[in-house]
Amino acid sequence: MLAAPDLTIHDRSNPQYLYERLVGSVVELIRTGTLPVGGRLPAVRRCARQNGVSVSTVLMAYRRLEDLGLVEARPQSGFYVRSDAHELLPEGGRNGSEMVPKTVRVSSMAWDVFGAEGASRHVPLGHAVPDPALLPTERLGKFLAAAVRESGAALMQMMPQGPLQLRAAIARRLLEAGFTATPEEVVITSGSVESIGLCLRAVTRPGDAVAVESPTYFAVLKVLESLHLQALEIPTGADGGFDLDAAERVFRDCRVAACVVTPNGHNPTGVVMTDPAKQRLVELSVRFGVPLIEDDAQGDFGFSEQRPRSLRSFDADAVVLHCSSFAKTLAPGYRVGWIAAGPLMSKIMSARFASTVCAATPSQFAVAAYLERGGFDHHLRSLRRTTQRNLRRMAELVRESFPNGTEVAEPRAGTVLWVRMPESVDAMQLHQLALRRRISVTPGPIFSASGGYRNYIRLNGAVPWSARVREAVATLGELASGLAEGMPAQAVLDWMEIQHGP
Amino acid sequence: MLAAPDLTIHDRSNPQYLYERLVGSVVELIRTGTLPVGGRLPAVRRCARQNGVSVSTVLMAYRRLEDLGLVEARPQSGFYVRSDAHELLPEGGRNGSEMVPKTVRVSSMAWDVFGAEGASRHVPLGHAVPDPALLPTERLGKFLAAAVRESGAALMQMMPQGPLQLRAAIARRLLEAGFTATPEEVVITSGSVESIGLCLRAVTRPGDAVAVESPTYFAVLKVLESLHLQALEIPTGADGGFDLDAAERVFRDCRVAACVVTPNGHNPTGVVMTDPAKQRLVELSVRFGVPLIEDDAQGDFGFSEQRPRSLRSFDADAVVLHCSSFAKTLAPGYRVGWIAAGPLMSKIMSARFASTVCAATPSQFAVAAYLERGGFDHHLRSLRRTTQRNLRRMAELVRESFPNGTEVAEPRAGTVLWVRMPESVDAMQLHQLALRRRISVTPGPIFSASGGYRNYIRLNGAVPWSARVREAVATLGELASGLAEGMPAQAVLDWMEIQHGP
Repeated sequence: MLAAPDLTIHDRSNPQYLYERLVGSVVELIRTGTLPVGGRLPAVRRCARQNGVSVSTVLMAYRRLEDLGLVEARPQSGFYVRSDAHELLPEGGRNGSEMVPKTVRVSSMAWDVFGAEGASRHVPLGHAVPDPALLPTERLGKFLAAAVRESGAALMQMMPQGPLQLRAAIARRLLEAGFTATPEEVVITSGSVESIGLCLRAVTRPGDAVAVESPTYFAVLKVLESLHLQALEIPTGADGGFDLDAAERVFRDCRVAACVVTPNGHNPTGVVMTDPAKQRLVELSVRFGVPLIEDDAQGDFGFSEQRPRSLRSFDADAVVLHCSSFAKTLAPGYRVGWIAAGPLMSKIMSARFASTVCAATPSQFAVAAYLERGGFDHHLRSLRRTTQRNLRRMAELVRESFPNGTEVAEPRAGTVLWVRMPESVDAMQLHQLALRRRISVTPGPIFSASGGYRNYIRLNGAVPWSARVREAVATLGELASGLAEGMPAQAVLDWMEIQHGP
Repeated sequence: MLAAPDLTIHDRSNPQYLYERLVGSVVELIRTGTLPVGGRLPAVRRCARQNGVSVSTVLMAYRRLEDLGLVEARPQSGFYVRSDAHELLPEGGRNGSEMVPKTVRVSSMAWDVFGAEGASRHVPLGHAVPDPALLPTERLGKFLAAAVRESGAALMQMMPQGPLQLRAAIARRLLEAGFTATPEEVVITSGSVESIGLCLRAVTRPGDAVAVESPTYFAVLKVLESLHLQALEIPTGADGGFDLDAAERVFRDCRVAACVVTPNGHNPTGVVMTDPAKQRLVELSVRFGVPLIEDDAQGDFGFSEQRPRSLRSFDADAVVLHCSSFAKTLAPGYRVGWIAAGPLMSKIMSARFASTVCAATPSQFAVAAYLERGGFDHHLRSLRRTTQRNLRRMAELVRESFPNGTEVAEPRAGTVLWVRMPESVDAMQLHQLALRRRISVTPGPIFSASGGYRNYIRLNGAVPWSARVREAVATLGELASGLAEGMPAQAVLDWMEIQHGP
C-alpha cells in the first residue's frame, strides 16, 4: 500500500469552505497522480485532526468524492482512488465538440468553482455578477425598507405569478428589447436558472436532446443534467455568434426538443448576435418546430448605442420563451427573474408551482418600486460604462502579462472576458493555483459538456477597478506563464511565494 | 353543430384571474354536460368581447384546455370538446386507492385552486397558510428594514447554502425536533416545495416510484409529476397516520426509490404519527434501503404540550432527509425553507445549484435576525393557540351546518380541517360554487393522484376569527346540503342568491 499523502489545508480563512477545499484538494491530488489509482486517502480521523475540522466534515467530503465516482469506500479499511477515476477528470484536451447529444456531468466542477468564490478575501474574478460596490445597494435597500412600511402585509403573502406592478414594469421595459408583452404573460421567477429550468420542463421530457451553444453558460449545463436532458452542443465562434449552418443541420437531422440560446452578451464569449442572425435563428426554429429559450439577462448590458434586440422581437408567433433577470444588472441576491411565456403560460405556471411556488415577495416589491422610481436606466448606463472600461483595461493587462499565444475575445455585452491561453496551460490547474493565491477565476472546461476549453478561463470585469485587481490579473499571468513553460504546479506556487510572499 | 353556450364571467373583481376563471368555467361546462362531447366552444372573439378581455387571454385559456386534453383545435373552425374529455375529469368516485404506481396528473386542478385563492375579497379557507394578521408582520418587517441598514451589501449577494447565522439558528431549533445537526449540513431553500424537489432529485431518476401518503399534500404530487416520478399511494387513516403494514409490503414488494412523509400535522388530515410508528417507519426505511424525505413544516405547529419529534430524531444513520420551512409559521411570502441534508449534502447542493442557485438573501437575513431576537417561540405559542381554537369552532360549525353524514377529522397539528361529506357531494362542484360565493376551499381530489377524495374538502383555520368566517362556513354548509339533496349546481346558486343576495 502506498503512503497516504499529506492533506492539510493551509488557508483556513473561511472554515465554511474547508469542506469544498478538501474535496478540491483530493481531486487535485488524483489529477496530478500524487494520489495514484488504488491509493488510499488519508484516514478520516487524521485528516480531521490535521485540519481542525470535525470527522463528519471529512466524511462528507469523502462521500462526495465517492458520489463523484472518484473514490470508493472499502469496509473497515478506508477510501481508495477508483481505477476509472481519471476518465472522470477533464483531461480530454478537445476544444471543439462533435455534435452528438451528450449526457451532462458538470456538477462537481461548477460547484467547486461556485463554492470557492464564496471565500472571503478572494479577488472575485470568477463569477459573472457585478460586485455590490457597482450596484445601487443603498438605493434599492431604501425601496425595500419603504416596501416594508407601505405594504407590510402584502410582503408576507405568496404571489405565484408575481405582483402586477412588477410584471407591468417589466412589460414596459420589454419594449426596449423590441417586443410587446402584456403583464399577463409575464411570470416572475427566482432568477435565470429557475427560468430556464421552467421553460425546459414545459417543452421537454427526460432523455430529450437540447441544443446549446458551445461554449455555454455552465448553469445551463447544470439544469440539463438535473432534468436528465442531453446536451447537443452547437459551436459558437468568438466573433460570429451561434453557427447557424450547424444549427440548421442539427435542427434538421436530430430530434431536438428545445434550443437554449444567449443572443446578447453570450456567456462566456460576450458575443452579440447580429439582427440577420437572430432573424434566421427564429425562422429555423419555426421551420423545424424547435422551441427557442432565450436567456436575455445580459441584453441590458450591451455596449452599443442601442440596446440589442431580443430573439422574441423577431418572432411574430411568440414561439420564443424569453427569459431574463435582474441578477446581473441590479441585485444578484434578490433572486428576481422573469419569463415572457406567451402561449406556454399555463405550462410554465404549472412547472413554477412544482418548483418554488413563487419568488420571495419582499424582493419583488423592492425591485418593482425601484423600476418605477429608482433611476434604473441611469444606473445601467453607469454600470455598463464602468464594466466596459474595466474589460478593456483587463484585456490589455492580459495581453501584457499572460504567456505568448494568449488571445482575448472582445465582448460586445456583459461583464466577462473570455481568455484563450496556449494549449499547454491547463485552466483547471490554473484555477486551483489561483485559489491558493486568493484569486477566483472560472476555468473553461465547465462551459462544455464535452470536456473542451481546457486552456480557457473567464474573468469578471464587473468589479471596482483597483491595484488589487490589477495585481490579481498580473498574478494570473505569472501563474499561466509558469504552467505554459511546463513547470510543475507546486514549483509555480513556490516561485510565486519566493517573489511575492505567501 | 350545437349552439355554443354563454361563457360570460360575471364576477370581474379581479381581472388578473379572468383567465383562470375562464378555464374553470369551461371545465365546469364540460363536467355538467352543458358543453357536450363534440360541442364547440364559444368563438374566441365573441368570448373576448363578452368578457372585456383580450383575444389573446381567451386564446391562452383555450390553449390551456387543449394542453389539458379536454378540447381540441380544428383548423379554421374553432375549439371542440374532445370525445375522451370526461375520462380526464375527476369523476372516478373511488376514495381508496390501489397501491400501484400511478402517473401523476394534478397540474390543472391544483393551479385552478391556487389561482382562485389569489382573488381578493374571497374568504380564504383554501390555502394552508396563516393569514398575515396572525403573523408577526410588523416585527419581521422591522428586522428586514434593520438588515438593510446593517448588512446592505451582503443582502445583494448570492449565498448558495444560505448565511451561516441563519443555518446556525435553524440548527439550534432542530434540537427541539429531537436531533442534532451542524450548520454545515443545513441548506437553505426557497421553501418546502423546493426542498422536497431537491431531495427527490438527489435520490431518484425519472420513472422511479415514490411512496407517498394518501391523501397527500398536493404540492408533493405536483413535484412528482414535474420530475416524471410515479406516485405509490400508501393509505393514511384519519386516526392512525401512515399505514405501516402497507408501507412494509410496498417497500418489500415494489422498487421504491424514496418515501415522502409528513409525520407531524399531516396535510390535510392533521394527524401526528406516534413515536413508535415513527420509529418503525425509520427501521423499515433502513431495512429496505428506501430514503425517507420528511416534510416537518408543521412540526412547530403541534397542539400537544411537547413538540412532536421529527423522523430524523429516530435515525442514528441520518438516512432521513429532513425538510421544513417558515412558510406556515412565520412568513409564507419570504420563501425560506431548509433541508438538514446529512451525508447527501453534496447531491443536494448540486441539485440546488440547478434549481434556483440560492434563496433570496434579504429574506434570509430578516428571518435569521428574527430567530435570534424576535421572540419566535412566543409567537408560535400564540399562533398555535389561535389556530387550535379556530379549528375547534370551525369543526363545530361544520357539524351544525353541513349535511348529515359529514365527518370532521380532529387535527393534532397544523392549520387545516379535513372534512368528509356524504358521497353525493362533489367537492370540485362545491369548490366552484363556493368561488361564486367568494369563498375559497381546497377540494379533496387534488390530494390524490388516483382521483379519490371526491367528497372531501380541506378548510384553513389559520384566519382571524370573524362573523365573515362563520358565515362562510355556514354558506359552505348550505351549498353542500343543496348538492347532497341532488339539486343542480345552478339551482343551488340561485337559491343562495334568493336567500342571501348576490
